[in-house]
Amino acid sequence: MNSNYKNPWQTHEIKNPYSNPWIKVEHATVTTPAGTPGIYGVVRFQNIAVGVLPLDDEMNTWIVGQYRYTLNQYSWEIPEGGCPLGTSPLQTAKRELKEETGIIAENWMPVLAEIQLSNSVTDEIGYSFVAKGLTIGASEPEETEELDIKKIHFTELLDMAMKEQIQDTLSLCTIFKVKLLLDQGVL
Amino acid sequence: MNSNYKNPWQTHEIKNPYSNPWIKVEHATVTTPAGTPGIYGVVRFQNIAVGVLPLDDEMNTWIVGQYRYTLNQYSWEIPEGGCPLGTSPLQTAKRELKEETGIIAENWMPVLAEIQLSNSVTDEIGYSFVAKGLTIGASEPEETEELDIKKIHFTELLDMAMKEQIQDTLSLCTIFKVKLLLDQGVL
Repeated sequence: MNSNYKNPWQTHEIKNPYSNPWIKVEHATVTTPAGTPGIYGVVRFQNIAVGVLPLDDEMNTWIVGQYRYTLNQYSWEIPEGGCPLGTSPLQTAKRELKEETGIIAENWMPVLAEIQLSNSVTDEIGYSFVAKGLTIGASEPEETEELDIKKIHFTELLDMAMKEQIQDTLSLCTIFKVKLLLDQGVL
Repeated sequence: MNSNYKNPWQTHEIKNPYSNPWIKVEHATVTTPAGTPGIYGVVRFQNIAVGVLPLDDEMNTWIVGQYRYTLNQYSWEIPEGGCPLGTSPLQTAKRELKEETGIIAENWMPVLAEIQLSNSVTDEIGYSFVAKGLTIGASEPEETEELDIKKIHFTELLDMAMKEQIQDTLSLCTIFKVKLLLDQGVL
């Protein structure tokens, strides 16, 4: 549906005022779709956001609690990690699930693919998966991470999501879509 | 549930390598939760993301198509706009719905409140609403915007969202939650 639409923005010059291993900021001078002069600051991500919702045979799942530096706030989320551009979101999902929860899963099903997390300013995209056929082992968190792990029933997680006790959008979007797929009998 | 968790990060110095009217980039030298030295680049947003899903009595809704500069891609989304920090998301929702679609609504119900759009790097938060009791007028888009407006049935929009023909996460999360609220008889 979207292939016939041409880019109405013109870009004249791009500067790179900041970068670190995770993001690169581009400052562009542009002509807007209305034909007026303007600027656009784009935050380019070096990683894709990847989330996993594990489900055991009794419909239990596992969530991860961590302090989010950006918002100065504690946050419960589905297991998530960054996938370097050009590598496989599914491999990242498998690695992060194992590292954060110790879980290995036999069956993987895509839930979200190439969603745009904040497309007015960033080019960050996200993927998520449901993991089934679980074997529980020991977690191996990265050294910068201080994580709490909690096993809860999916019904309780959905309830937390509906009441906004989950605020991370990749988690919310995955939980809601998993519920709709379960209701459709697809999962 | 989250109030007992203390910030395990220590911040030593913050620099501000870039800002424009929409974002401010902060580069912090930190000690990580593991006690190791590190850096954190945070993108602070000057606006809250606000979305509206209008619904008429026949369950029709309106979506907005625009070219997203950041991803070099055309995107269909629910009507959205930026709410300056400290002002009311609901007032922004009313203004953006009127500007983008020409619609005025009598009844407003919150769908998402203070969701975190990309909390590993940004502090951006989002709100969304369902708008009912609609009066249709003429749209008044901002001069930088070049928008297409489409009236479709909510069932068709949900189908687009499930098939990822909608990729904007605030839109997706709102559409999914509205479907769940409709199924629960709350909407």
